[in-house]
Amino acid sequence: MKMIQSAEKHAERVFVKVSDLSHCKKDAQVWVRGRVHTSRCKGKQCFLVLRQQSSTVQCLLAVNEHISKQMVKFSGSIPRESIIDLKAKVVLVEQRIESCTEQTLELHVLELFLLSAAKAQLPLQIEDASRPEKSDDPEALKIRVNQDTRLDNRVLDLRTPANQAIFRLEAGVCKLFRDVLTAKGFTEIHTPKIISAASEGGANVFTVSYFKDSAYLAQSPQLYKQMAIAADFDKVFTVGAVFRAEDSNTHRHLTEFVGLDLEMAFKYHYHEVLDTIGNTFTEMFKGLRDNYAKEIAAVGQQYNVEPFKFLEPPLKLEFAQAVAMLREAGVQMDDEEDLSTPSEKLLGRLVKAKYDTDFYILDKFPLAVRPFYTMPDPANAKYSNSYDMFMRGEEILSGAQRIHDPEYLIERAKLHAIDLSKIAAYIDAFRYGCPPHAGGGIGMERVVMLYLGLDNIRKTSMFPRDPKRLTP
Amino acid sequence: MKMIQSAEKHAERVFVKVSDLSHCKKDAQVWVRGRVHTSRCKGKQCFLVLRQQSSTVQCLLAVNEHISKQMVKFSGSIPRESIIDLKAKVVLVEQRIESCTEQTLELHVLELFLLSAAKAQLPLQIEDASRPEKSDDPEALKIRVNQDTRLDNRVLDLRTPANQAIFRLEAGVCKLFRDVLTAKGFTEIHTPKIISAASEGGANVFTVSYFKDSAYLAQSPQLYKQMAIAADFDKVFTVGAVFRAEDSNTHRHLTEFVGLDLEMAFKYHYHEVLDTIGNTFTEMFKGLRDNYAKEIAAVGQQYNVEPFKFLEPPLKLEFAQAVAMLREAGVQMDDEEDLSTPSEKLLGRLVKAKYDTDFYILDKFPLAVRPFYTMPDPANAKYSNSYDMFMRGEEILSGAQRIHDPEYLIERAKLHAIDLSKIAAYIDAFRYGCPPHAGGGIGMERVVMLYLGLDNIRKTSMFPRDPKRLTP
Repeated sequence: MKMIQSAEKHAERVFVKVSDLSHCKKDAQVWVRGRVHTSRCKGKQCFLVLRQQSSTVQCLLAVNEHISKQMVKFSGSIPRESIIDLKAKVVLVEQRIESCTEQTLELHVLELFLLSAAKAQLPLQIEDASRPEKSDDPEALKIRVNQDTRLDNRVLDLRTPANQAIFRLEAGVCKLFRDVLTAKGFTEIHTPKIISAASEGGANVFTVSYFKDSAYLAQSPQLYKQMAIAADFDKVFTVGAVFRAEDSNTHRHLTEFVGLDLEMAFKYHYHEVLDTIGNTFTEMFKGLRDNYAKEIAAVGQQYNVEPFKFLEPPLKLEFAQAVAMLREAGVQMDDEEDLSTPSEKLLGRLVKAKYDTDFYILDKFPLAVRPFYTMPDPANAKYSNSYDMFMRGEEILSGAQRIHDPEYLIERAKLHAIDLSKIAAYIDAFRYGCPPHAGGGIGMERVVMLYLGLDNIRKTSMFPRDPKRLTP
Repeated sequence: MKMIQSAEKHAERVFVKVSDLSHCKKDAQVWVRGRVHTSRCKGKQCFLVLRQQSSTVQCLLAVNEHISKQMVKFSGSIPRESIIDLKAKVVLVEQRIESCTEQTLELHVLELFLLSAAKAQLPLQIEDASRPEKSDDPEALKIRVNQDTRLDNRVLDLRTPANQAIFRLEAGVCKLFRDVLTAKGFTEIHTPKIISAASEGGANVFTVSYFKDSAYLAQSPQLYKQMAIAADFDKVFTVGAVFRAEDSNTHRHLTEFVGLDLEMAFKYHYHEVLDTIGNTFTEMFKGLRDNYAKEIAAVGQQYNVEPFKFLEPPLKLEFAQAVAMLREAGVQMDDEEDLSTPSEKLLGRLVKAKYDTDFYILDKFPLAVRPFYTMPDPANAKYSNSYDMFMRGEEILSGAQRIHDPEYLIERAKLHAIDLSKIAAYIDAFRYGCPPHAGGGIGMERVVMLYLGLDNIRKTSMFPRDPKRLTP
């Protein structure tokens, strides 16, 4: 077929989705567009599996009054992954076709058009990239596609059923986050990514050339969320790119990720905010469980995933309780020491064993391990009004009550030996009256990774960025 | 009152929103939190206007068994914009209070606590920043707050009723865009902002230092949207920051703005996409009209805004028709010349006069004025399958059918004298089968500005970035 240049509309052709074929009447004539997943010719027949997103259907071309011998031969020569249009008859089959998602029918092809040909040599096979990662299948393990090959050829890799599901579920995470907060009266805002001063001290920040000057990429929207609170927006959230120039090459760090951030004024106690965030997660987990079961199952076809467990309301522990649990398990640590990554993971296992939940909130972190703008605990100077939240033993949110009093903020900044001239604009934001407020920032890709129980954050970023990868 | 450090919960205090006070029973005792908008003391009485977001209510402190003389004096001394908590009795008044939004009642204060004091000297007065811009009021014109003062003190400026409304409506634009497209089967994606190669030739692109290398900030998510299409996501949208290193100091250019982008595979004709985008705008305009009437009215209190008019389905003209209309109005231009900014505006007026719509679609732009990846018109080589959309005579969307055939893409790139090695990754995305597709990118702040009929894009960016402004 000639390249589609919008010369014709073909309005008479009624296209049916592969997943809807089972709703067609017996012997119905349909149009279908999809990719050649596999094809196999034998004499006067060609069997072809057509794939459309995650659905597949078997198609048969046989030499007859519609199909010439040349056509059968041509069909067998179409490279995998090419896009074709078929006019075909829906035929019910007696024996289930185990190799396709549509198992009760096949398509008898009347016409076939090649729309977009793939290269004959593919850098990876969709079948290989889709193979289950079960450890009891030595054959499958041998032909696993490694991660760099996948990412280098992301356009192909993203076509696997698991990837189709992961990124649809990811869209669901963002939608649920926004919908739940909007229902709670939050307003969405947009915060600048290019900033004039490094927001959190200047370490780990990317520099941008800005006309004749230099600028930076924002490591978080926090100052801007807080300004929106000082500007009477009361409850705000923002979804956007966040940048970290950290040379961390781990399974859970990216240099650019999507932040789900929120900030909220409260009346008298930051637990008003903590409970709002906790409930937001509960609603998100319920929404995923109820509306994305098909996607969760598709990911489970390839990866070993334990269902995600959560309590309602969520479990809330204090930092001191966590330290006690860790000590009981043999970990040696000080009261005011931050959690190491191994302790964090161990704590996740201890909490899971004791409370049967993959999500929990840890409140009252030691003041010493939090930034200068964190409000100290009024009852115990060693602690602070700050919290982290965890999924499957890994941190996915960090937040706190922020100091809203400019004089006290200066006092705390001085104790941290911070150059006051560099944070003048931040402090000034609170000089015209500001309500007490708290908030937090969530790493979106981490939420998706940990909800699905995946082992690497590059699986949940469509085009991941890390210290060694800037392409595609 | 002591700084709120979350020491107490005060769960017994039932707070009422100022806008809900009229639903309270006569003589009800309530708690209210808000800002001191104005205060005026006379002897043993103090009249104070309390503001909460865009709502205001008159409050009376009089020396009595609850309120001491010192308290009245103290109340009169609280700087404007400070945040206070009031315990008060709701009292109906006989004469309407014209100066407040709550006109039928006032609050008789029983207790007053100062939560967060504002500086006594404010860089701008909310009253001045809120003043209507009507040209028949010479007094108001004299004390207008200029734009740089507003932006330098954005935390104060954002508190005006018009700004509170603008950014709530802006959140509505994003919500509607996403909800309408999600209902049409689109999937939300996230695309990287840091890219290894300048996407559109290298002009007007910001450079980022990336560890030991250099990288760029994406001028558009286009390549990534197209890769998502090639990866079988079928219909995708993305909302995110877009960067233009253009030294344009105009009323409608920003160096960083929010892009509302979409891309969609189609069957045979790009009008399938064009009509989807057109209908998306119609649904957005209806949603704004129906759900944001209060916000539109609040903006209208300060700025002269003509209601936004649109047709359903939207008006669609071809570029050649527009040229004919402009020539008839005296403009001299060639068939294959792009629209100049004055022509664009004049055309908006001509279209409005003839068709009574503030929104229209212009299809079939000259091929010569569009990028190399634009699909030529199969019927007339002078034109292309590309389109712009306009609101009140200014472009808010640019889009096209993209060339999905790698060989033809190379041919077109060569004609544009583009260095093929620099776009190899782009071309490779189409080598593994890609359906025909089209899409477009919308400037979010422009949509809000033009929907409301405002005169400057800095009014619709919460923290705008232009060549001369990087703060706050």
